[in-house]
Amino acid sequence: MTDRLIYLPLGGAGEIGMNAYVYGYGPAGKERLILVDMGVTFPDMDTTPGVDLIMPDLSWLAARADRLEAIFITHAHEDHVGALGHLWPMLKAPVHCRRFTAAIARLKLEERNLPTDILHVHAARPETVEAGPFRVQFVPVSHSIPESSALVIDTPAGRIVHTGDFKLDGTPVVGEAFDPQQWYDIAHERPVMAMMCDSTNIFTPHPGRSEAVLDAPLRQLIADAPGMVVATTFASNIARLKTLAEAAEASGRSVCLLGRAMKKMITAAVETGVLTDFPHAVPPEQAVEIGRENLMLIVTGSQGERRAASAQLSRGKYLGLELKEGDTFLFSSRTIPGNERGVIRIMNALSEMGVDVVDDRGGLYHVSGHANRPDLEAVHDLMRPAMLIPMHGEHRHLREHAKVAMSKGIASEVIVNGSMVDLTGTAPRIVEYVETGRTYLDGAVLIGAMDGVVRDRLRMALNGHVIATVIIDEDDLPLGDAWIEVMGLPETGRSGRSLIEVLEDEMADFLERVDRKTVGSDEKLDESIRRILRQSALDEIGRKPEVTVIISRLMAE
Amino acid sequence: MTDRLIYLPLGGAGEIGMNAYVYGYGPAGKERLILVDMGVTFPDMDTTPGVDLIMPDLSWLAARADRLEAIFITHAHEDHVGALGHLWPMLKAPVHCRRFTAAIARLKLEERNLPTDILHVHAARPETVEAGPFRVQFVPVSHSIPESSALVIDTPAGRIVHTGDFKLDGTPVVGEAFDPQQWYDIAHERPVMAMMCDSTNIFTPHPGRSEAVLDAPLRQLIADAPGMVVATTFASNIARLKTLAEAAEASGRSVCLLGRAMKKMITAAVETGVLTDFPHAVPPEQAVEIGRENLMLIVTGSQGERRAASAQLSRGKYLGLELKEGDTFLFSSRTIPGNERGVIRIMNALSEMGVDVVDDRGGLYHVSGHANRPDLEAVHDLMRPAMLIPMHGEHRHLREHAKVAMSKGIASEVIVNGSMVDLTGTAPRIVEYVETGRTYLDGAVLIGAMDGVVRDRLRMALNGHVIATVIIDEDDLPLGDAWIEVMGLPETGRSGRSLIEVLEDEMADFLERVDRKTVGSDEKLDESIRRILRQSALDEIGRKPEVTVIISRLMAE
Repeated sequence: MTDRLIYLPLGGAGEIGMNAYVYGYGPAGKERLILVDMGVTFPDMDTTPGVDLIMPDLSWLAARADRLEAIFITHAHEDHVGALGHLWPMLKAPVHCRRFTAAIARLKLEERNLPTDILHVHAARPETVEAGPFRVQFVPVSHSIPESSALVIDTPAGRIVHTGDFKLDGTPVVGEAFDPQQWYDIAHERPVMAMMCDSTNIFTPHPGRSEAVLDAPLRQLIADAPGMVVATTFASNIARLKTLAEAAEASGRSVCLLGRAMKKMITAAVETGVLTDFPHAVPPEQAVEIGRENLMLIVTGSQGERRAASAQLSRGKYLGLELKEGDTFLFSSRTIPGNERGVIRIMNALSEMGVDVVDDRGGLYHVSGHANRPDLEAVHDLMRPAMLIPMHGEHRHLREHAKVAMSKGIASEVIVNGSMVDLTGTAPRIVEYVETGRTYLDGAVLIGAMDGVVRDRLRMALNGHVIATVIIDEDDLPLGDAWIEVMGLPETGRSGRSLIEVLEDEMADFLERVDRKTVGSDEKLDESIRRILRQSALDEIGRKPEVTVIISRLMAE
Repeated sequence: MTDRLIYLPLGGAGEIGMNAYVYGYGPAGKERLILVDMGVTFPDMDTTPGVDLIMPDLSWLAARADRLEAIFITHAHEDHVGALGHLWPMLKAPVHCRRFTAAIARLKLEERNLPTDILHVHAARPETVEAGPFRVQFVPVSHSIPESSALVIDTPAGRIVHTGDFKLDGTPVVGEAFDPQQWYDIAHERPVMAMMCDSTNIFTPHPGRSEAVLDAPLRQLIADAPGMVVATTFASNIARLKTLAEAAEASGRSVCLLGRAMKKMITAAVETGVLTDFPHAVPPEQAVEIGRENLMLIVTGSQGERRAASAQLSRGKYLGLELKEGDTFLFSSRTIPGNERGVIRIMNALSEMGVDVVDDRGGLYHVSGHANRPDLEAVHDLMRPAMLIPMHGEHRHLREHAKVAMSKGIASEVIVNGSMVDLTGTAPRIVEYVETGRTYLDGAVLIGAMDGVVRDRLRMALNGHVIATVIIDEDDLPLGDAWIEVMGLPETGRSGRSLIEVLEDEMADFLERVDRKTVGSDEKLDESIRRILRQSALDEIGRKPEVTVIISRLMAE
């Protein structure tokens, strides 16, 4: 049997978020495997109410954990490392990453009381990690977090370049610039068989802009602001935090950081040497003593998260600090689609306080961390891979990216989660479809997306819940009246009578005329009651609720 | 007592949607009233799961319906006329509007079996409607629906201009252009005391563009498309439908309209003479026989609505029509903030079919129906009102608009829903705060936003629902074991045992040791059981669920 090289995305290919990509090399079905990234994505009320985190379903890989040589993490964003603490126990392979990423990964492991000696810290290429048939190098790329890396993955079948998330930034303020020469060298020391490439910004038509272009406008804004300035951005964007803090300092303002993530990221950046000259930050209890025109807060919650510092400040006093008329609140960020309502809620609450809210002003105060279409094309041209597999994108992003590659004569195909691709040829060839999906962290429990738990929650939210209780005595006869409780339903409907009374009357009628066969069977009784209550509610309030029927049978003692 | 002129927004001032503005003239507390617009806004899962429509709470006005002279509707968009059928019965005043608006308003009344002879159709200014102390004229404005109108409201205290929704379009394709001369005349025949002004687009810095600029790009796109073309936009945007249909015709395509709203709007536009030369549309059963390169569908659902034609087509065959590889789907629309997830879901589903999805391309295929900041400033300058009251906007829009007006020396203030303003002076003066809020259409029932119904649904969705049943016998002793049912919760938790079993065991323990005082009181028993189950669930699954306790007491017969 000949060896083959396979690629199998388990997350990230068909969505932006929860990245998890498997590579394998060896005889079919016996490939030695590596996993690149273990990310999460975030729940929403529309589809996942009550869920805490969404992760890829890695059960395919868990069932083959004995073949898993290693896990590589490209960078410390939640959609690349966030699932580590939750899913590592089902894989138990060594984890490789660079220093800053390891600092964040370590916290994830510690939170779950997992061993941290499974973490292996590596320097950038030329350092090489051997993992079974794979030889892997970390290639520094610019992104919106320090020490992001592409991976050069060498296999006996050929060289793969896995870009991770990246942009072409020659002046990224913190961390390493994108270095075209190094990429050129990679492609020329060994031809690139396949490039797995970030697709997030494929629809953005103009070239990306450097982090450094924000410096002047931010300094201007902060210097001109009359009162206190509050700026929010992703805590992991260390370069942005630095630009903001230095702009504050330049305008004579003390800096105060709010939000746990903010402090965690700054600490990790300082400890790992990524950040060397961040202005001194004052704690909130000291900040309250400083005149507002001499103060700038840098806070979490740019996506409108309800518990983060931005939302807290929009609701009033937080840690002794309070915004008021004449203050300025800057969103140095872009709202991720789906988060608009939360962000707008904060903006309006701040507006009610008389605070001037400033958004990114079409890019004046924010740049993206991803390569735009012309940047991606430049990288295609630089690397000339035999195959280009778009990754990290919704279906529409992957499809567009594949089209762009094919228009240049590069073999490409849309490969979504669960499609196993054999790369050992001239074009990507799907050889198997693997069952994939999503795992939810729900409170303290991991549940499957298809377990029905969340479906039931959505149904209760959309339809309300009726609970009917019936007691059946030792002789299989209804004992007393049935009881109805409702939750999430109007008190009265068309008739003007109490909904509970209307439903209890229906039940009383039913129990009077019910036959012994029905009453003798829990299943039949449940079904009949459910049907009657749903219909009766529909007549009364125009809605068929969820119904739970509780049948208590008294036993002869 | 001197007469005063008051303004009281009950909806629309503090949100985009559900417009409802009251004006009054007369002695304080005895003013004769008119209402301008009766709009709705739309529910979302985050805040209003299961709700069908959101409307302003008009109970203040309903309690004073004897003082209400008339209702005026500025135009036929849902956020201006959508609540008519639901809330008119509590007001029962004559409704005044122009012809096209009346055609849509009539449908709203008919749907609810309400009299339609309360509708009064008027021509544009100089025709004047007398309503108590008010003399009202409809002034044609350009907007994204035919026959939109501003209102000139003359009172003994002065002239008010209520802009309604508008843009400055000299070539609106269908309907009347914005006519600066007419506005100039209005301001010069009698000075404008107060202008209540649309604020939706106050943050858009460039001048608005005409509907007519879309013609060439749309023709090009549709002519160049290889397969079938599907275009979605708001059904009420008759001008857009016309541009799209004519572009289709010009490229040799038959037009087929899908979606009830689409047909309703076209019918109303043709019947009222607003639309005279719309290309012949073929029904779906005929469309399926036409070659796809000769077909264009114009469909509802541009905001991602799950039941509209766009969503249906993204899920597969709909009315015999099916999209496939090489077809083009155009969103000739902008996604309203909050609707992104639904729209993106459709885009990705279409991408999976191989359909090329085209969005508005930054304005190439869509223009807004609202005046942008420079346009609003132009109208301020044209009308020079003594006061400018920003309306139709979230708080941040109203605040920005007031700032713009004040920077020109016009008296202005942010007036939100429930603030009653006395206009009989040199500046707006808040004289009273009226209780306002939202009314939900929930199935067949109107409920208040604060009734707790929706709060309970949200709690069940976020926390799951546990139902405990206990039977207490004639001697106040627990009879048998307690029963637990759960909905929306994981089956097993930390212990690996069934959650239901764990909770039932807890209940059994509790019932063994419960004292007679607790068991004798429904309230005490309920509280104890609730506390125990919530704590026990927290330990087991890391979440405190909603708990319903059902206590059945057997009575001695």
